[in-house]
Amino acid sequence: MSISATQVKELRDATGAGMMDCKRALVEKDGNFDEAVKYLREKGMAKAAKRAGKTAAEGAVASYIHMGGKIGVLVEVNCETDFVARTETFQDFCKQVAMHIAAAAPEYVTIEEVPEARVSEEKEVLFSQLADSNKPENIKEKIVEGRLAKFYSEICLLEQEWIHDAEVGKVSDAVTAAIAKVGENIIINRFARFQIGG
Amino acid sequence: MSISATQVKELRDATGAGMMDCKRALVEKDGNFDEAVKYLREKGMAKAAKRAGKTAAEGAVASYIHMGGKIGVLVEVNCETDFVARTETFQDFCKQVAMHIAAAAPEYVTIEEVPEARVSEEKEVLFSQLADSNKPENIKEKIVEGRLAKFYSEICLLEQEWIHDAEVGKVSDAVTAAIAKVGENIIINRFARFQIGG
Repeated sequence: MSISATQVKELRDATGAGMMDCKRALVEKDGNFDEAVKYLREKGMAKAAKRAGKTAAEGAVASYIHMGGKIGVLVEVNCETDFVARTETFQDFCKQVAMHIAAAAPEYVTIEEVPEARVSEEKEVLFSQLADSNKPENIKEKIVEGRLAKFYSEICLLEQEWIHDAEVGKVSDAVTAAIAKVGENIIINRFARFQIGG
Repeated sequence: MSISATQVKELRDATGAGMMDCKRALVEKDGNFDEAVKYLREKGMAKAAKRAGKTAAEGAVASYIHMGGKIGVLVEVNCETDFVARTETFQDFCKQVAMHIAAAAPEYVTIEEVPEARVSEEKEVLFSQLADSNKPENIKEKIVEGRLAKFYSEICLLEQEWIHDAEVGKVSDAVTAAIAKVGENIIINRFARFQIGG
């Protein structure tokens, strides 16, 4: 099995073990990264590796604290270069997103992140609400589809109305506008929102 | 089945439905809160309820942004009264905890939060490291126990060395000191730590 220099470097970065040890571990474990980490640790050649995701993205983390600490938000927004990440335009946008999250209390960033179980529970409820209706099935389905879109617009950040300017539209539209401004792709990656007593 | 006024109020707060509707839903569902929420929603009498935990605690959310946004921390610290939550002493302590988390990068608050699978994997690695040793089993177990404590002190916030003052000891000791200062119980409830490219 041939092991690439990139694989060796990744393992080295993750474990702090020597180059040759990393190569040997990868050969031994047929290129399996996690197995190789474990191998190195068992041999005492690696420290407890942080389970860090390997994202190459640049960007910034912004926070917003509301009402003297009753609500707090942390948000990570990614862009392509550190240069853009440090601009006032980008930093202001990150701050605006954090404020939006504090006010609008989304639960997920994207529709894709909503757990399947939650969606099917919601669908069940929506269909039950139409149980007494005489409308044909295909109309009921259209109605449920519409209400599901509304459900998403309540819990998914990108689907919510941008609180800073109703004319912008959704948060995803605000992202698009920010992309046009800075000339780089922008992704709202993750957020945390803590509320005291909530 | 008798339904208490407290139950009715909780359901009302969670759903925004009317008092009598809430009582009827609870009677119908034998006092089961989640079932009652679903019942109200199916009847169209409740909005999509936020899945909010019901914590009565007071406290504050603090944040700390490091290196112009490359690392960000959000932390919720609870105390008993809003009065204490607003004091400078308490707010300063929250800020210090946030800074500590930015620097020391814990993964959990307490030892109890570390997933069982992670602990057993760690134990396996630690025993493997002693495989070639001639020490008796009970000594090996003592060694593994000691190293496991070190592992916890790396990944659990409360077990870490308090970065602001080595003489204080662990973060849990800093919490104890803060409790003595403000005269109320203090609990570090949860945190988020985002790092760009990490």
